[in-house]
Amino acid sequence: MSWLLDAVRCGELGVENLLVILVVEDDQLIQSVVEESLTDGGFEIVIASSGENAVALLDAADGKYRALVTDINLGRDKIDGWEVARHARKIDPHFPVVYMSGKDAIEWASKGVPNSIMLAKPFAPAQLVTAVSQLLNAGTTPG
Amino acid sequence: MSWLLDAVRCGELGVENLLVILVVEDDQLIQSVVEESLTDGGFEIVIASSGENAVALLDAADGKYRALVTDINLGRDKIDGWEVARHARKIDPHFPVVYMSGKDAIEWASKGVPNSIMLAKPFAPAQLVTAVSQLLNAGTTPG
Amino acid sequence: MSWLLDAVRCGELGVENLLVILVVEDDQLIQSVVEESLTDGGFEIVIASSGENAVALLDAADGKYRALVTDINLGRDKIDGWEVARHARKIDPHFPVVYMSGKDAIEWASKGVPNSIMLAKPFAPAQLVTAVSQLLNAGTTPG
Amino acid sequence: MSWLLDAVRCGELGVENLLVILVVEDDQLIQSVVEESLTDGGFEIVIASSGENAVALLDAADGKYRALVTDINLGRDKIDGWEVARHARKIDPHFPVVYMSGKDAIEWASKGVPNSIMLAKPFAPAQLVTAVSQLLNAGTTPG
Amino acid sequence: MSWLLDAVRCGELGVENLLVILVVEDDQLIQSVVEESLTDGGFEIVIASSGENAVALLDAADGKYRALVTDINLGRDKIDGWEVARHARKIDPHFPVVYMSGKDAIEWASKGVPNSIMLAKPFAPAQLVTAVSQLLNAGTTPG
Amino acid sequence: MSWLLDAVRCGELGVENLLVILVVEDDQLIQSVVEESLTDGGFEIVIASSGENAVALLDAADGKYRALVTDINLGRDKIDGWEVARHARKIDPHFPVVYMSGKDAIEWASKGVPNSIMLAKPFAPAQLVTAVSQLLNAGTTPG
Repeated sequence: MSWLLDAVRCGELGVENLLVILVVEDDQLIQSVVEESLTDGGFEIVIASSGENAVALLDAADGKYRALVTDINLGRDKIDGWEVARHARKIDPHFPVVYMSGKDAIEWASKGVPNSIMLAKPFAPAQLVTAVSQLLNAGTTPG
Repeated sequence: MSWLLDAVRCGELGVENLLVILVVEDDQLIQSVVEESLTDGGFEIVIASSGENAVALLDAADGKYRALVTDINLGRDKIDGWEVARHARKIDPHFPVVYMSGKDAIEWASKGVPNSIMLAKPFAPAQLVTAVSQLLNAGTTPG
Repeated sequence: MSWLLDAVRCGELGVENLLVILVVEDDQLIQSVVEESLTDGGFEIVIASSGENAVALLDAADGKYRALVTDINLGRDKIDGWEVARHARKIDPHFPVVYMSGKDAIEWASKGVPNSIMLAKPFAPAQLVTAVSQLLNAGTTPG
Repeated sequence: MSWLLDAVRCGELGVENLLVILVVEDDQLIQSVVEESLTDGGFEIVIASSGENAVALLDAADGKYRALVTDINLGRDKIDGWEVARHARKIDPHFPVVYMSGKDAIEWASKGVPNSIMLAKPFAPAQLVTAVSQLLNAGTTPG
Repeated sequence: MSWLLDAVRCGELGVENLLVILVVEDDQLIQSVVEESLTDGGFEIVIASSGENAVALLDAADGKYRALVTDINLGRDKIDGWEVARHARKIDPHFPVVYMSGKDAIEWASKGVPNSIMLAKPFAPAQLVTAVSQLLNAGTTPG
Repeated sequence: MSWLLDAVRCGELGVENLLVILVVEDDQLIQSVVEESLTDGGFEIVIASSGENAVALLDAADGKYRALVTDINLGRDKIDGWEVARHARKIDPHFPVVYMSGKDAIEWASKGVPNSIMLAKPFAPAQLVTAVSQLLNAGTTPG
């Protein structure tokens, strides 16, 4: 739906108002799957290839990102997805969080944050788009 | 997915059974974004360009529409989206309602109807399709 | 559970921290049923006997009340429960709202606020206590 | 809370409007636990000691009962709780259903009806009262 | 999104890990609509053209299928969709179930399994994809 | 409802089947409030006065406890409630968790486990009983 983004970029809706999702993933194949899925759904994404990078982007974001989609295992001795999500929630307690994982999915019940969604691999692109949409739709409904 | 609508129009599923959504929006750019998003998802839509028009269509519909997607601000001294939604719910207490708004989103908690969804602009097309689907899926599950 | 309130009043937990619910009801029999039910559940209540009174209390409350329990019909040409709830939500978009009604329950779908509960009469005291608790428990869970 | 029922019986709220729950249980100890729990919560109950009796009461009820609380195992070669619940849902698709069971709880996922609650024994009285209240509160909220 | 399946088939993610949905449908037009909708969403599907076939596939599957999408009416004197779903839930109590039906939708409240979704015809492809995704996303979130 | 516990202790329902909740609280006043509330609701409780004690009880429990109710702040340089809950979830991913806190409630969104409930002080006893019951009722409903 690039026509939507084009229209938006033309200034009709305002460039500053794009709905941007922060994706944290160090595997290039998964990166491209996630990027194509979310872009197809009309979301814009920014990719961080490490947890450290993600934390820096969140600290500097000032509300730019509207949701987090993160892999769990981001390299030995590196910040993992559980920690990135906790950092995002310290900044904004209502921040939508979607985890993606294979073998670590079972740890979601003890390490995940409340009101998040764990996508256990393998998952279909529609599940990712639905997960992000569900959390954003809930988040836009105060009360 | 025009092939589906074509198949349906061929009479296999019955033309009279199309799932039609009433969209109330006076901005043509947003109209086209909403139309393309919902049509992509396999929904048929009818567009009302004013609240007055929407109320007249609902009064004459006799169950034709299965959900309402409405902008809030529909012109000074005109019927707004809050009023259109209340009118739809008087006719059918279970009617699915999705609001779209920018600056008025904060008023949803005091002016929206129960079990509705507010999409705060900017939102991605996937959020709209998911919102309508969630409400319809809940609505088809009595009990 | 007056022992709890006594303990609280003794200053152990702080008098200013009592969980107070605003009840709007002009029928004395229902007033006493609601009061006994909620007090049994450990809540403290303040009763307003008219919608006008309730609005004045909410305007002056500065966060004192944590939930609203309101009858719908509060007298001819008077502020009704629908309006009291909308007023409460303008002040705090997350304010828990429970309506009680007999013949007007059907109007909840068009006149109620999002994320509220309608108790259609007759209802049991346990339903009222559960309704208030559910909304408060959801309200204390940001994210 | 017999004072409430007394007040109701005095005609202030109307005798015909009592909130009555149909309890199906052939064990007298469990019967008395369930009766005391629900009566404490302000509900009135009618006890059927067999599935056959329950089905007959539902057929003759004409809307008298507002919810069903049923044991599963009601005697060899007799109508069981699964069948009583299906019968109640054929009469009213929105009828609240709570099952109580020990060893049969695992079968709920394949034999239970949608939007019901299974209380696996042992359960506390508060769980039963909360289960009935949750389903009734959801049922009084159309939309 | 055949590129995703291609990538997966190339072995990057492991062929054995594909997310496969069992679809039970004897009408070829509906079969093709369901197949195209789910394949578009990134799901792989296996089609059973009878309830007997579906039960045999489930018995032999050993966890191969991750969800069931089933029509209700599968031929006179044949196993129907209600029975297929109960069979799937006996094998796995958490198995996601989506029913599709026209005239039988009203029976969902008495014959459906808990935590399933009934799609009443006519439905849009997006509703089916969202229904499957919602149930899978809930299913991947233990706790 | 000590009559229930008495009946149970008499062996009718089996002593080994009591529904026991682990409460972690170092403040004696709050301990007694929690104990009276839950006992009134028909639950049996075991109190741990430190996080270290709670972890040891959970490790030795072998399924004895059915839910956790825990304070957050359990003493300087001691195991806190967040850590106790994570420990419980590592043993059983579906273990019901209720936190109680005053000033630390805001941290729930980043430090709490999924599908838990935070009771922000002050809370009424009915909220605690409802919170535990809601989580147990959800937990007894697989699927």
